[in-house]
Amino acid sequence: MEFQVIRKDGNARYGILRGTHGETETPCFMPVGTLGAVKGVTWDRIGQMGYSLVLSNVYHLYLRPGLEILQEAGGIHPFTGWKGLILTDSGGFQVFSLSKLMKITEDGIYFKSHIDGSEHFFSPEFVVEFEEKIGVDIGMVLDECTPYPATYEYAKHSMERTVRWALRSIRARTTDKTAIFAIVQGGVYNDLRLKCVEMLSELPFEGFAIGGLSVGEPKDEMYRITRLVASQLPEDKPRYLMGVGKPEDILEAVEAGVDMFDCVIPTRNARNGTLFTSRGKINIKAAKFKRDFSPVDPECDCYTCKNFSRAYLRHLYVSGEINAAILNTIHNLHFYGRLMKDIREAIKKGKFQEFKRNFLEKYSSQEGSG
Amino acid sequence: MEFQVIRKDGNARYGILRGTHGETETPCFMPVGTLGAVKGVTWDRIGQMGYSLVLSNVYHLYLRPGLEILQEAGGIHPFTGWKGLILTDSGGFQVFSLSKLMKITEDGIYFKSHIDGSEHFFSPEFVVEFEEKIGVDIGMVLDECTPYPATYEYAKHSMERTVRWALRSIRARTTDKTAIFAIVQGGVYNDLRLKCVEMLSELPFEGFAIGGLSVGEPKDEMYRITRLVASQLPEDKPRYLMGVGKPEDILEAVEAGVDMFDCVIPTRNARNGTLFTSRGKINIKAAKFKRDFSPVDPECDCYTCKNFSRAYLRHLYVSGEINAAILNTIHNLHFYGRLMKDIREAIKKGKFQEFKRNFLEKYSSQEGSG
Ligand SMILES: [Zn+2]
Ligand SMILES: [Zn+2]
Repeated sequence: MEFQVIRKDGNARYGILRGTHGETETPCFMPVGTLGAVKGVTWDRIGQMGYSLVLSNVYHLYLRPGLEILQEAGGIHPFTGWKGLILTDSGGFQVFSLSKLMKITEDGIYFKSHIDGSEHFFSPEFVVEFEEKIGVDIGMVLDECTPYPATYEYAKHSMERTVRWALRSIRARTTDKTAIFAIVQGGVYNDLRLKCVEMLSELPFEGFAIGGLSVGEPKDEMYRITRLVASQLPEDKPRYLMGVGKPEDILEAVEAGVDMFDCVIPTRNARNGTLFTSRGKINIKAAKFKRDFSPVDPECDCYTCKNFSRAYLRHLYVSGEINAAILNTIHNLHFYGRLMKDIREAIKKGKFQEFKRNFLEKYSSQEGSG
Repeated sequence: MEFQVIRKDGNARYGILRGTHGETETPCFMPVGTLGAVKGVTWDRIGQMGYSLVLSNVYHLYLRPGLEILQEAGGIHPFTGWKGLILTDSGGFQVFSLSKLMKITEDGIYFKSHIDGSEHFFSPEFVVEFEEKIGVDIGMVLDECTPYPATYEYAKHSMERTVRWALRSIRARTTDKTAIFAIVQGGVYNDLRLKCVEMLSELPFEGFAIGGLSVGEPKDEMYRITRLVASQLPEDKPRYLMGVGKPEDILEAVEAGVDMFDCVIPTRNARNGTLFTSRGKINIKAAKFKRDFSPVDPECDCYTCKNFSRAYLRHLYVSGEINAAILNTIHNLHFYGRLMKDIREAIKKGKFQEFKRNFLEKYSSQEGSG
């Protein structure tokens, strides 16, 4: 993997990340394809929207379809049919949030499948092996995601273990076709975060993620930790803020120097009928859209906005048609893709602050509010 | 509407049907878009698959979104965003099968909505008015769908009422932008069917449908009635066999001289994991597809078959991903579109019998059977 920062505007960075399966400009947003598919949208549309990097998840892929089948298929790319870049989260977060966690030891994580209750074990080494074997472009290390709130002692303990696991992950590598990113933990404690960055930065990772945020902490805590960590991470490596977020969060983090994002918000919200517009979110279920024959966002040039009205999308939604999920997801992912593109253009022109201010002013005007 | 039979091969006909919103070659299959959307597939793909005529349903559209909203939108085309031809079934069948039917009188049908139990009334005149007001290209008359089995007396009574309603429908017309098709009833009784054809043929309908089949009667009854009715219908008008059907049924009916078809089978089966292939149906859920990295149908050039394996589609299906419904529906509708195209080509070359024999031999070979 190669990463190049091409232009800086304050701490905001415009760059290019090149991997085994293509390249992406940064800052970028990665659509979430947990199980090897972005729910509601086919790969050809994902590509047409300008996305060249998507996220998937070791925990989910390990359970279904499983390593054997992914390997027999020749890897995750031939199996899923996605031809661009893939980053996999290790699934540490999912083990904590979704599965029945059994035990964490220094060795790794013992857990029960959320599907059938079967027992499994992830070690840092196994996660890297899995990611290399299925051929992802970027693999995240296994980490211990510190919950919020957590005591200083707990956060310290789990940060230190995350660093030890990161070292084991690096040692487990056998190929440079799969880049490995470390994850910074340390809860909301400045000194723990700084210590974590210091220790991880010494290791030859190809990128660094900020983990353990967007887990329930107040916004200002999230922004503060993001700014702190981003300011200390190596300049020449990509920085990825995991699981974030809303448009306003992305703008804050880009300002702090973050390059990569993922979040289920645009896709999950779409399926729930919540749509992003340049003037704020709307809920397409609202009765006031019954006779609203205008597009979701008149400034959007996605397939949905070019062809369908709010009234039609509301009709599909209230009728329970799966096409509501499809068309809504197309719009929301297009909105996020457009946001990232505008952010990149603004940085290139040295006008990120201006863009951010204008975007937020309009976005919070709530004219479109549902 | 204009219809032209261009070539005959036995009783099979190749033709062109032109309406207010485009044209379609016949024999053709109409994807079912009950609520103004073909479940799982966006209109752009429907068009790309070669479909230019889709089916919708007055009963469903009347309940949701309702006439007022459809009219305010400027009709069903602007509302749904579909730019091709639309035929609407009157919904007589749905009133009998789906809603709580309250009463049939000479005036029309009293029924309760399957959604909220509210009470409604459809007259033959209202159905035509509705179809004209929403601007469909072809509207079906309101008929009384004879169930199976039905006594001779019952079938006679309901056939005669269907004819009287057809006459009222004709009289209710106010524009030739919406063509109106009559529906032949009469159960499985030859003389009733012939009488119905005789009476309806005298009226200035732009096409004729064969209704009341595929409602539980044995296949040979269905084929017999189809052949009988098709042989007596006017040569110069399109013939539409409603709610049929499976590939083998379509081939039989084309041979009898039928031009148009609709059926939920390709779309509903797709959502249930049943996929059509040139060697028979497969069920993608089957464990044997776990490691089957070949396409659904190696002879199919749809988006799904060109990019994804049976193993991947099985993975999506068993994981409950909505992309399973999307990709499966694309394949099944493509299969039906291709079947109709091949049928038309065969008729044009005077080789329909040969095509039918070859198709069925291969289709029943069951190599692909799941
Ligand atoms: Zn849009
Ligand atoms: Zn196919």
